[in-house]
Amino acid sequence: MTRAARLGAPILAVALAGAAPAPVHVDGERLKGLLLALAEFGKNPEGGVTRVGFSKEDQAARVWLVERMKEAGLDVWVDPAANIHGRRAGTDVSLPVILFGSHIDSVPKGGNFDGDVGSMGALELMLTLRDEKAVTRHPFEMVVWSNEEGVHYGKGVFGSRMAARGPDPGELEAKDEEGVALAEWLRRYGVDPARIAEARLDPRRVASYLELHIEQGGVLHRGKVQIGVVQGIVGIDRFHVSLEGFANHAGTTPMAERRDALVAAARLILAVREEVMARPGRQVGNVGFVQVLPGAPNVVPGSVRLPVELRDLKREVMDEMAARVRARAEAIGKEAGVTVAMERYANDEPALTDPGLQDLIEATSRGAGYSTLRLPSGAGHDAQSLGRAGIPIGMIFVPSKDGISHSPREWTEWEDAARGAEVLYRVLRALDAQ
Amino acid sequence: MTRAARLGAPILAVALAGAAPAPVHVDGERLKGLLLALAEFGKNPEGGVTRVGFSKEDQAARVWLVERMKEAGLDVWVDPAANIHGRRAGTDVSLPVILFGSHIDSVPKGGNFDGDVGSMGALELMLTLRDEKAVTRHPFEMVVWSNEEGVHYGKGVFGSRMAARGPDPGELEAKDEEGVALAEWLRRYGVDPARIAEARLDPRRVASYLELHIEQGGVLHRGKVQIGVVQGIVGIDRFHVSLEGFANHAGTTPMAERRDALVAAARLILAVREEVMARPGRQVGNVGFVQVLPGAPNVVPGSVRLPVELRDLKREVMDEMAARVRARAEAIGKEAGVTVAMERYANDEPALTDPGLQDLIEATSRGAGYSTLRLPSGAGHDAQSLGRAGIPIGMIFVPSKDGISHSPREWTEWEDAARGAEVLYRVLRALDAQ
Repeated sequence: MTRAARLGAPILAVALAGAAPAPVHVDGERLKGLLLALAEFGKNPEGGVTRVGFSKEDQAARVWLVERMKEAGLDVWVDPAANIHGRRAGTDVSLPVILFGSHIDSVPKGGNFDGDVGSMGALELMLTLRDEKAVTRHPFEMVVWSNEEGVHYGKGVFGSRMAARGPDPGELEAKDEEGVALAEWLRRYGVDPARIAEARLDPRRVASYLELHIEQGGVLHRGKVQIGVVQGIVGIDRFHVSLEGFANHAGTTPMAERRDALVAAARLILAVREEVMARPGRQVGNVGFVQVLPGAPNVVPGSVRLPVELRDLKREVMDEMAARVRARAEAIGKEAGVTVAMERYANDEPALTDPGLQDLIEATSRGAGYSTLRLPSGAGHDAQSLGRAGIPIGMIFVPSKDGISHSPREWTEWEDAARGAEVLYRVLRALDAQ
Repeated sequence: MTRAARLGAPILAVALAGAAPAPVHVDGERLKGLLLALAEFGKNPEGGVTRVGFSKEDQAARVWLVERMKEAGLDVWVDPAANIHGRRAGTDVSLPVILFGSHIDSVPKGGNFDGDVGSMGALELMLTLRDEKAVTRHPFEMVVWSNEEGVHYGKGVFGSRMAARGPDPGELEAKDEEGVALAEWLRRYGVDPARIAEARLDPRRVASYLELHIEQGGVLHRGKVQIGVVQGIVGIDRFHVSLEGFANHAGTTPMAERRDALVAAARLILAVREEVMARPGRQVGNVGFVQVLPGAPNVVPGSVRLPVELRDLKREVMDEMAARVRARAEAIGKEAGVTVAMERYANDEPALTDPGLQDLIEATSRGAGYSTLRLPSGAGHDAQSLGRAGIPIGMIFVPSKDGISHSPREWTEWEDAARGAEVLYRVLRALDAQ
């Protein structure tokens, strides 16, 4: 049976319509089957899943996954941070491991592709290696990180952070809304939180970490590009901005006498957008909500709180945007008679991918006949944890329809997922041969 | 004892500094005593009062007030809408009543002058007439309207509306957050809600309605003007505006691809201010709050709701402002890829004061040596109910310090309150003589 026949006629037709070759190593139809099987865990009636990290649905999916990994002939274990590892030995025991994977937890009412494509892509690749009876020099290890979304307990990329640097003070003792500590959930997952330090990876024993993921933006989809070569995971600065004017009667206070905190906030919201867009590039900025006090139709707003978020691959670009927004905020406040304070309350530094891995992903993709584009990841990923620990990281993106993610409407074409897995396969084999 | 001596040295000094004569008929010191006594009911530790209409605090104040009105020699009764009336007979039984008054209920954490100055001013005037053994042709009737603020049950100028046109459908059956119907509160106040129709005034039996009130704006205070001659109570239009964009990932969605409902809302907030200020005049517009969905720092706002409120003395000005705001909203939505809907959900028509009463208040004030300014009332008042029922209305404003109202910081100088009561006294005597 030819590869095209195995892919099935409908998928072949779409693949041909997209004018991109089908995978020739991995099995796109088997990958689709794995994704659909995984989608049963936490399935929602409106589509998509709710499979929050550290939940019954997540654990059920993990039990299923461990069985599939064992069927792939892997040596499977769960580390004390609840990360699932599956290893295939190499021939040269002196060589470090080639690591790759993603996550299978979701946001509430999430989709079936965020994390799943990279995790099932890794598993499909392992099945392919098994079927091929492939022999590699390096050990190949797939990993499915725990609680990447961090919906439960509020902090993202949990498992990969544990592998890269360990918990923040008090993190394992933090309790959820039901009073259950994170450590207790680790025990429910069958691991010992007291041994969390054993989840740490030795960067010297990891050759590279590769992650396949959906883009979660619309750049590849709009540009009809098959493979995104990720330049890095953007840094994120978040600021609290407070604007203090003076609440007053909206009927009796003349327009010229108002110190309206919401009018000042409106100017600032537009200034954030202007300053972010003032230079070319893919940097982004967001004001996600506004809280207004006292908050009545007939009262001039006295007080406003809002968050400003700025993201870019370069720290200096982030700092320059923040400085420009701060200057605008001060000018706006002065003009409106409103006191403005802007304070950074959270930040993630940018995590750049390895330039050599970028070149390899690009060349490999083109060699397979796929179109490519270099772009930043605006979203956070487990790869950033490993990158910040000094491990060379590479990321392969596949298109998200209309850029929609964290939604039941999240969609990646099956053949796009298969192309991503094919690139991952080829890159890993090339790395092994280097 | 001279009037100046009765006012006391500190007050006299301030009055002289203000270069305005002290009252010569009413007793400013007695008025201050009445205001301070009333301020004990619902008193808050931080200053001001919480004396919401239909509450124990309000009822305690009303019991005290009825006693004071009886001491003033008035024929006192409470109508089925819980309005307190106190009448002094005239000599000509064929003549209609000269009516005047205000309210004593407050907003939560309100001040000691909104409503109180007009109510205690009316009582002081009745005490003055008693002391003078004055004989009037018309009956003189003071009235203290129930639940003017409408905090409880959500609809303002309750008592005066009942006197002017009766309840809205279902209004007496409406329940508060404790499940108590408005009708039940009327019963607690000792009146029979089934007889609410008897609270209606016959406009032919009311010569005029006069109300003394604090300005609740800063126009008189800033302009150092003692008496405001109110041109009318502005109309109020309120609109719900909804803006529907598309919620998306704030990291992965390029700036140019966003359909950010909050950015569109920010433009609209500024457009409301611009369009209201585009013409000279005292018209006002307000956006009092913004609700954003989903409402997270890392999500592009998909949906925004906000209220737009527009006020002016002229219906045509209100309509023109609304049309301009609507046109701007449509243009903003089109540019931002955001669907904008704007719907009027409430309106109060402007209630103009009687031009003859305006002239009389102005001439009387000047005759007393007080400076005057004609201005609209941006806030609603009981007078509007009577004006809409066809009764000639007049309103006298006294300054509010810094324009602050509905706040413990609400303040009117004692001598300004006394000047207002003096003008009310003189206007009523002049009306009686006409």
